[in-house]
Amino acid sequence: MSVTDELLTGAAEYATRFDSGDLPLPPARRVAVVACMDARLDPQALLGLSVGDAHVIRNAGGAVTEDVVRSLAISQRLLGTREIVLVHHTDCGMLTFTDDEFRQAVEADTGIRPPWAAEAFAELEADVRQSVARVVASPFIPHRDAVRGFVYDVTTGALSEVG
Amino acid sequence: MSVTDELLTGAAEYATRFDSGDLPLPPARRVAVVACMDARLDPQALLGLSVGDAHVIRNAGGAVTEDVVRSLAISQRLLGTREIVLVHHTDCGMLTFTDDEFRQAVEADTGIRPPWAAEAFAELEADVRQSVARVVASPFIPHRDAVRGFVYDVTTGALSEVG
Repeated sequence: MSVTDELLTGAAEYATRFDSGDLPLPPARRVAVVACMDARLDPQALLGLSVGDAHVIRNAGGAVTEDVVRSLAISQRLLGTREIVLVHHTDCGMLTFTDDEFRQAVEADTGIRPPWAAEAFAELEADVRQSVARVVASPFIPHRDAVRGFVYDVTTGALSEVG
Repeated sequence: MSVTDELLTGAAEYATRFDSGDLPLPPARRVAVVACMDARLDPQALLGLSVGDAHVIRNAGGAVTEDVVRSLAISQRLLGTREIVLVHHTDCGMLTFTDDEFRQAVEADTGIRPPWAAEAFAELEADVRQSVARVVASPFIPHRDAVRGFVYDVTTGALSEVG
């Protein structure tokens, strides 16, 4: 039995106790969260979000890439969100390599150099500021006056703002 | 009090009951989930995932964009995941407009045409197949033999595989 099959068993149980089938498409709390994909980070649980409350956007590092700008533009322009919360975390895999190392390893294995940067970073708080700065600089995100960045500590569960 | 401030109150409570501070960086169940950012979809709850189990990647539509390929490449190459689960859902915002309409609206409002496609789609199951096909076609994702796509029904909580 694959892990995916095991997850489907969980999904079947979820449906039996499901009771929130009448929620509207726009997020109730008008906030979009951008967080790392890390397995130890559960943004909904961490931030006390209920089903229907917020858009949650996640990728490797929680980096504000072009695709995150796309998602935030859609979130704000079409679905009414107004605030943005960025969450990076301690012990992030993106701290363990450089973009050049990653690109060279991929090219060595596949013969093809990725046309994108891996978005690795060397200093956690600086990368949170980088992500905030990218949001604030984007002309495609209409509402940029409530954008705040945080670091989640995977060993204590604490969330700290990066000023 | 902003919504973000309210979420910080939730985060402070989360830390007081936190008890999973010793989990390793690689996801325990070696699976990566790619899902839409929709507020009504909680991938961890839906799939019965515990903290530490899986990478969760999310964007507008759950589209397999270049940034998702980047995240999956890092997930598999550096952090040991092997299976990929793609989750789109009914009543998706991406079904309500076209890429051309979005691009023209952004250009009308900002004077700048986005250099990226919005990734809107007209048919839900076809877009799940499109996402699976993009994963399978990527030379940068090492393990592509366990990639399955699903539609989540936001009114019933049921998850259905797209064959």
